[in-house]
Amino acid sequence: MRENKLRTLWAQDKPAINGWLAIPSAFAAEVMAHQGWDTLTLDMQHGLIDQNALLSMLQAVQATSCGAVVRVPWLEPGAIMKVLDAGAQSIICPMVNTPDDAHKLASYVRYAPAGARSFGPVRAGLVHGADYAGAANDNIVAFAMIETRQALDNLDAICSVEGIDGVYIGPSDLSLSLGCRPVFDDVDPPVAQAIDHILARAKAHGLRAGVHNGRPDVARARIAKGFDFVTVSSDARILIAGSQQLLAEMRA
Amino acid sequence: MRENKLRTLWAQDKPAINGWLAIPSAFAAEVMAHQGWDTLTLDMQHGLIDQNALLSMLQAVQATSCGAVVRVPWLEPGAIMKVLDAGAQSIICPMVNTPDDAHKLASYVRYAPAGARSFGPVRAGLVHGADYAGAANDNIVAFAMIETRQALDNLDAICSVEGIDGVYIGPSDLSLSLGCRPVFDDVDPPVAQAIDHILARAKAHGLRAGVHNGRPDVARARIAKGFDFVTVSSDARILIAGSQQLLAEMRA
Amino acid sequence: MRENKLRTLWAQDKPAINGWLAIPSAFAAEVMAHQGWDTLTLDMQHGLIDQNALLSMLQAVQATSCGAVVRVPWLEPGAIMKVLDAGAQSIICPMVNTPDDAHKLASYVRYAPAGARSFGPVRAGLVHGADYAGAANDNIVAFAMIETRQALDNLDAICSVEGIDGVYIGPSDLSLSLGCRPVFDDVDPPVAQAIDHILARAKAHGLRAGVHNGRPDVARARIAKGFDFVTVSSDARILIAGSQQLLAEMRA
Amino acid sequence: MRENKLRTLWAQDKPAINGWLAIPSAFAAEVMAHQGWDTLTLDMQHGLIDQNALLSMLQAVQATSCGAVVRVPWLEPGAIMKVLDAGAQSIICPMVNTPDDAHKLASYVRYAPAGARSFGPVRAGLVHGADYAGAANDNIVAFAMIETRQALDNLDAICSVEGIDGVYIGPSDLSLSLGCRPVFDDVDPPVAQAIDHILARAKAHGLRAGVHNGRPDVARARIAKGFDFVTVSSDARILIAGSQQLLAEMRA
Amino acid sequence: MRENKLRTLWAQDKPAINGWLAIPSAFAAEVMAHQGWDTLTLDMQHGLIDQNALLSMLQAVQATSCGAVVRVPWLEPGAIMKVLDAGAQSIICPMVNTPDDAHKLASYVRYAPAGARSFGPVRAGLVHGADYAGAANDNIVAFAMIETRQALDNLDAICSVEGIDGVYIGPSDLSLSLGCRPVFDDVDPPVAQAIDHILARAKAHGLRAGVHNGRPDVARARIAKGFDFVTVSSDARILIAGSQQLLAEMRA
Amino acid sequence: MRENKLRTLWAQDKPAINGWLAIPSAFAAEVMAHQGWDTLTLDMQHGLIDQNALLSMLQAVQATSCGAVVRVPWLEPGAIMKVLDAGAQSIICPMVNTPDDAHKLASYVRYAPAGARSFGPVRAGLVHGADYAGAANDNIVAFAMIETRQALDNLDAICSVEGIDGVYIGPSDLSLSLGCRPVFDDVDPPVAQAIDHILARAKAHGLRAGVHNGRPDVARARIAKGFDFVTVSSDARILIAGSQQLLAEMRA
Repeated sequence: MRENKLRTLWAQDKPAINGWLAIPSAFAAEVMAHQGWDTLTLDMQHGLIDQNALLSMLQAVQATSCGAVVRVPWLEPGAIMKVLDAGAQSIICPMVNTPDDAHKLASYVRYAPAGARSFGPVRAGLVHGADYAGAANDNIVAFAMIETRQALDNLDAICSVEGIDGVYIGPSDLSLSLGCRPVFDDVDPPVAQAIDHILARAKAHGLRAGVHNGRPDVARARIAKGFDFVTVSSDARILIAGSQQLLAEMRA
Repeated sequence: MRENKLRTLWAQDKPAINGWLAIPSAFAAEVMAHQGWDTLTLDMQHGLIDQNALLSMLQAVQATSCGAVVRVPWLEPGAIMKVLDAGAQSIICPMVNTPDDAHKLASYVRYAPAGARSFGPVRAGLVHGADYAGAANDNIVAFAMIETRQALDNLDAICSVEGIDGVYIGPSDLSLSLGCRPVFDDVDPPVAQAIDHILARAKAHGLRAGVHNGRPDVARARIAKGFDFVTVSSDARILIAGSQQLLAEMRA
Repeated sequence: MRENKLRTLWAQDKPAINGWLAIPSAFAAEVMAHQGWDTLTLDMQHGLIDQNALLSMLQAVQATSCGAVVRVPWLEPGAIMKVLDAGAQSIICPMVNTPDDAHKLASYVRYAPAGARSFGPVRAGLVHGADYAGAANDNIVAFAMIETRQALDNLDAICSVEGIDGVYIGPSDLSLSLGCRPVFDDVDPPVAQAIDHILARAKAHGLRAGVHNGRPDVARARIAKGFDFVTVSSDARILIAGSQQLLAEMRA
Repeated sequence: MRENKLRTLWAQDKPAINGWLAIPSAFAAEVMAHQGWDTLTLDMQHGLIDQNALLSMLQAVQATSCGAVVRVPWLEPGAIMKVLDAGAQSIICPMVNTPDDAHKLASYVRYAPAGARSFGPVRAGLVHGADYAGAANDNIVAFAMIETRQALDNLDAICSVEGIDGVYIGPSDLSLSLGCRPVFDDVDPPVAQAIDHILARAKAHGLRAGVHNGRPDVARARIAKGFDFVTVSSDARILIAGSQQLLAEMRA
Repeated sequence: MRENKLRTLWAQDKPAINGWLAIPSAFAAEVMAHQGWDTLTLDMQHGLIDQNALLSMLQAVQATSCGAVVRVPWLEPGAIMKVLDAGAQSIICPMVNTPDDAHKLASYVRYAPAGARSFGPVRAGLVHGADYAGAANDNIVAFAMIETRQALDNLDAICSVEGIDGVYIGPSDLSLSLGCRPVFDDVDPPVAQAIDHILARAKAHGLRAGVHNGRPDVARARIAKGFDFVTVSSDARILIAGSQQLLAEMRA
Repeated sequence: MRENKLRTLWAQDKPAINGWLAIPSAFAAEVMAHQGWDTLTLDMQHGLIDQNALLSMLQAVQATSCGAVVRVPWLEPGAIMKVLDAGAQSIICPMVNTPDDAHKLASYVRYAPAGARSFGPVRAGLVHGADYAGAANDNIVAFAMIETRQALDNLDAICSVEGIDGVYIGPSDLSLSLGCRPVFDDVDPPVAQAIDHILARAKAHGLRAGVHNGRPDVARARIAKGFDFVTVSSDARILIAGSQQLLAEMRA
């Protein structure tokens, strides 16, 4: 079976530098996939990516050595299994707030007896290798997003669920839930403490830890703290920042 | 933040004259949006509009002064939040039958602490203004559809839920649920009484009231009764009626 | 081979009542195709219909008894042959201004020895019958648009070209070319005379005559004069007229 | 209302020979629909078919005498009702594991008082006939997939639910759930016994029985045992098998 | 009629700062359109934009104050007129190498008597105003690309053609044609001289002059020389440059 | 630059076994690309593939070791150059009937000074390597289709044109043009002679020769005669043949 880029990097004790895709275009994805990102996350939750765009974007990204991660829209079995059948090898699931949520997520992404994923890897089996049925359970990576006060309260119970491979922190939602400003990087002190706490507990449970960032200096600092998977920016944010910079130079 | 056309009209004590879109085409939506409808509702439940069509239709409608409303396919958090992130400012949710349904709906459309909407307004923040994060909660309008006997039984409890801005009546489903013929306009007496009752209770709770109609005379009569938001016809129905009229003239 | 609705009607000495499609949506086309139009013309020239939309719209219309006509974007062999391979049985070609243009059009729509159409009816052969290769040349109808002063000057020569089955008049372009206002119905006198002249010469050459109209009374009057194929309105125009009428009733 | 091909065949005591569609293309569907399959199932669960592809594929298949069945992605009311409104007349729902699941499925596919399907058959009413509202409940066929040990344990209770018309067996998932290899045809003995048991109990309850196969000899043997609906192969599997055979001949 | 942003800026003696779009996505276009570019050019020649993408991208860009320019794929009447009907107000046509090419271009973009554009502004008339028919000829801007040695040889004759509003220089193609390296900015001396010469002759003929650049410093220098319309970068190039910069910072 | 699979095979004195794609689906293309075809030809002429489908299909095929060939719709510079910019490395052009046609084709596919291809390989440069600009002229393969009596009459002149890499024979069109039945395999004697003649003259001019076949035995026989590139079947034909065979077994 095709390697899961995350597992490959982690086996080498390297963090994964992740780009984020919100634009529903396989060509935009292909442009991004040729730039050297370790992984790209196709965001079906807040991004504008639907099932049809997801398929063509996976085709484009998986033609390169860049790993494809998908953030699914919600903790729904139909949607999550379709994403895996379409060939995603890593999944980020938003709003995993309880151990029950975590159990559901774990069960949706793995075949029996480990879970309850329905069998029919129509594209995944085609492109990832003839051994997919037997190898998928060990290959797939599932991140549970920890982004609410409720999830913080249940953190150890969530991290204890068999089949959760990592946590992913959404600083904006976590901030809102803690009554702070919704930002990625320069978070308010309660959020900063919560992030450190989540990282520490995840590591204590043997899980990987990922986090959303808006700037490379913040992402590097978080890697230094122990994060294994850091998002740095997105296609839309790069278009905005690049346009702003060019126009500022033109109008200086 | 961009005005919500419904709130603007209501602040002027005017009802909103609403057209309905079932055809998944941004050009058809654009044609409709230039005709003077106060609002157009993109119907993802019974219409043929999926996420991809929704995005391009919102782009087309929001290029005009016409307000965009979206009827979501069901009371599902992932689908509803995606619609808001894509830029919808008003939402109609089908089959809100219990206070718990209403609480869920209210929580899906507003950020903490008012609700549990996940933060990431990728298109909404781009097109509605830099103050979106802070202004969205007050700007968005959420209608709960009252269209079953169960909802009637729970009417006051539903209307009491904080965060529900209005009710929207689907006369066809309400009719079926009450054992009557599924029509919009010339409803059977039990349905007519139920509609009046819903209107009265909504107003008593300080909520706005909307209703689906199939003819302008019925829509006007309902405005006269106090409705704030009336649907008159849809793109598909206009194509049918217009074709029938033209062909009748040709074959007279 | 599936009947060509135009040939069937004409064999019964009946004119064809034609609707026009500018919206690139197979569902809008399907709605129109169920209303009783004899034929619907999918407009790839001024309409927003590209090759992909054409395919799905042909699938939708040809599921009914309504005949499908396609106005091609221009007198180009590649585009015209693709339209026929996709299953169109009747073609309207804009701007046929010279006998050479007419010869080209005739050659593009028929197989050797009658013409130079390339063989490969991938969808047409699938859906129109196993005898397509042998039957298509007699089944297909090709209209040459007469819509410029130059075409008027060459009218008899164009009408004499073997393989042109009919002329189709675009009153707007003809008006502009004759220095008049670009309208469909209440044309200026020079245009009215030109329309009568084209009809007379087409009939004299044994060709069918079609014309674009904007109102049913005008279309009926033109049928009375001898036209075989009359367009009455389009999807976009019906949406506009229907919306205007409904909104006028609402705001009366 | 348009016949439901399954009901027509069953009324004639004939089993339905079913092809499977995983490729999201209306043209591929159209090619398949012209080959003589009794029915084709559009697979939205493991296939790559989303709502937009579904619509155009239904248009293509329903233009022929082939019946259209849809496997929905999951037991979700919004998704299932959209599929019916788009014109599907038969539904296969995965993972019906409990009587409660079966009750939900039954309620989603039929109008009150039989169920709780919301009224608005925008395309179904257009293409299946003016009597759709009254006739749909009797016309639609709903299959519950029996594919887990849990479903086996609840088999009689599931089969007793009013409104379930048939069961459909997914041998792969059933195999995994029983600790066996995930195959369609040459199943392990426990799976073979389970299949026979499901068939027997379904018949005892007066239900129809369908099953997924990978080879015609297996499908024929299962018809001989009493199955009413057998899937033989899919578009993707035919492309693979055909290519392999052609390339083997070329490289012999 | 809606202003043509280029004419508005030029009337104020301001050059237009232009961004370039190669990604076929209305959302990517919308992101770019909100950043402050005076105009964005949708590239149908070398970009991946087809007719369908063009329509939705025009809808997205024209919802903002940013002007939309379209580079058409080639000097073809059908394609160019479709672009104008879809609502483009400015056109860049590649490979205008002879006065005859220029005459054709001029005739394709304007209605009689100024040209031979066919009448049917289905979207343009809808969104640009009821006076479109009369106002379009004066509103539209047509650029002829000067990018070959042959065009240089014919420069004065091309610039003399009535109806050509400006020239646009493609430094890469011009370089190749002159036997130099295909670059935008640091062109070889013969290309630099040719660019200066084209600018001078265009100005002498009263035409506007545009040029493709890859860096803002080069674009500013060319504005200083007298260019009226400068492209600075494209969506794809911004994604590449932004990713490279972020990854360099991450891996420093 | 990425290898051109045709050149690699030919350098090893091997013929290319080619599959044909008419279905506009990137997933169908991906299924085919994993089966071991040396190359797959995406047919934009008679297939249902438009520019948008082409892009995603190229992405899918080029993710594998299978080579991608494109049959363009016609000898048009805009369309051909777009196909190359999208990443096609080999082109088949229909209806090359004269030396002038051949000169045009040769000029459209190569950069100056060898030809007049416009520079802007937006996707090709991204995915085929940083040396694309310098390497493309030697890498690309252009086939001229010889499929009419006129082309036969001009055969030596066509084959003498610098920049034509091979001929491709369409037996159906060639048959029609010679007054025979339009078939691929069991051609009438005049066509058989013409095919042998074209092969011989192509080889005499140092060109590669390709031919369309419908059965592997015919393709093998033609390889034995010296053909370098043989098409064996298409996606649509495999679906038809496979379905027919399965249904025959089911109904035996």
